[in-house]
Amino acid sequence: MQIGKRTWAIAEGYIPGWSNGPAPAFTSHEAACILNTGDADAHLTLTLYFEGRPPAGPYRITVPAERTLHLRFNNLSDPEKIPLETPYSSLFVSDVPVVIQFTRLDSRQEANALITTIAYAE
Amino acid sequence: MQIGKRTWAIAEGYIPGWSNGPAPAFTSHEAACILNTGDADAHLTLTLYFEGRPPAGPYRITVPAERTLHLRFNNLSDPEKIPLETPYSSLFVSDVPVVIQFTRLDSRQEANALITTIAYAE
Amino acid sequence: MQIGKRTWAIAEGYIPGWSNGPAPAFTSHEAACILNTGDADAHLTLTLYFEGRPPAGPYRITVPAERTLHLRFNNLSDPEKIPLETPYSSLFVSDVPVVIQFTRLDSRQEANALITTIAYAE
Amino acid sequence: MQIGKRTWAIAEGYIPGWSNGPAPAFTSHEAACILNTGDADAHLTLTLYFEGRPPAGPYRITVPAERTLHLRFNNLSDPEKIPLETPYSSLFVSDVPVVIQFTRLDSRQEANALITTIAYAE
Repeated sequence: MQIGKRTWAIAEGYIPGWSNGPAPAFTSHEAACILNTGDADAHLTLTLYFEGRPPAGPYRITVPAERTLHLRFNNLSDPEKIPLETPYSSLFVSDVPVVIQFTRLDSRQEANALITTIAYAE
Repeated sequence: MQIGKRTWAIAEGYIPGWSNGPAPAFTSHEAACILNTGDADAHLTLTLYFEGRPPAGPYRITVPAERTLHLRFNNLSDPEKIPLETPYSSLFVSDVPVVIQFTRLDSRQEANALITTIAYAE
Repeated sequence: MQIGKRTWAIAEGYIPGWSNGPAPAFTSHEAACILNTGDADAHLTLTLYFEGRPPAGPYRITVPAERTLHLRFNNLSDPEKIPLETPYSSLFVSDVPVVIQFTRLDSRQEANALITTIAYAE
Repeated sequence: MQIGKRTWAIAEGYIPGWSNGPAPAFTSHEAACILNTGDADAHLTLTLYFEGRPPAGPYRITVPAERTLHLRFNNLSDPEKIPLETPYSSLFVSDVPVVIQFTRLDSRQEANALITTIAYAE
């Protein structure tokens, strides 16, 4: 059973600049939840787009067969960190079908705020 | 009138570890809202995917004809409970078309946070 | 310029039982935002699905040509009111293409919570 | 690598009437995040639809090649400002494929609320 598509985009992206509450659960972050239901590992390249500079990447990500990965954008460092408080977008290209959903936890205030949406697939 | 698809995936999944406020309304939870507009009962199998272990399931779910079911993942117990504070994803396969939407209520703080999105369908 | 589809479903539905803050802006509510970009009025029928009883409806809704309607489910009364704190789903059928998005404002606590998602279209 | 579609609609739209917290990060706002992964600039026209008056626009927007734009609806002024606390919807038409996601930050209360969803594409 294999579900999904191989190209996904998330137009929203903004990592809040600070956090409230115990880390890592309440650290302000953005995540791409990547589901690979197939029996082969998924190898993805991630490119980041910004408003005022050329794209960053490629970042290389592997999601094992029949596993999920909740990838925190905050933790990406190779080839470079994502700057905080900076609008960006992301493009994932996978060698096998996957499903990707976007989530942000914003804990800049005492009450955290959450958003999520299915990403755009082709 | 029958609307929907038979295969749905939700890549996000994380049941918060604690709650504030009166149960069950304010219990931190995740739900799959499953709409069956057709005139035959929908029989679904649910498989859960994790980051560091093999999938769990199948869970078996029935949504009667012309009914909705707001299924709380927290309440699943057969074949096993979903661990709290653990990233997961879910895959639903139905024998008739349905529509599935994902929602989380996070009441770990005094002010609850909510997210929702249409799931991914094929 | 006409964009959209004629059949839309929202699997999530739950009107919170109470509110904080000045009405109507902070009244807990759910809304279907219906956009009609075409040059003919859109006539929709809405059917509501529940967990433990037969469907309600049809509700009849008109969205004029080149207008939007942010329809509050709370305000529906013909043929019947939607009970509070009760899971439901909704199905819209339109005679012309429209675009529908779901939103809930939950003001049961001092800090309001918001959710939104594009509905499912066919 | 070019991903996306040329026509996008967002049926939800409502700019809250006031804000808490430091501007511009915590200013209540709505944004259309527009990703252009292609190697040509994207030229978009935006039309706004209301409940009780004719549409506004066209607004003209450019997203350079391989860039994103997180466009705040609050900042639009040509041909006219969007009134606060007023339901509206938006329609984007681009000359090249783009991906559009909708986000609102509502900081009317001390704890901000956030929503996001992928827009509707054709």
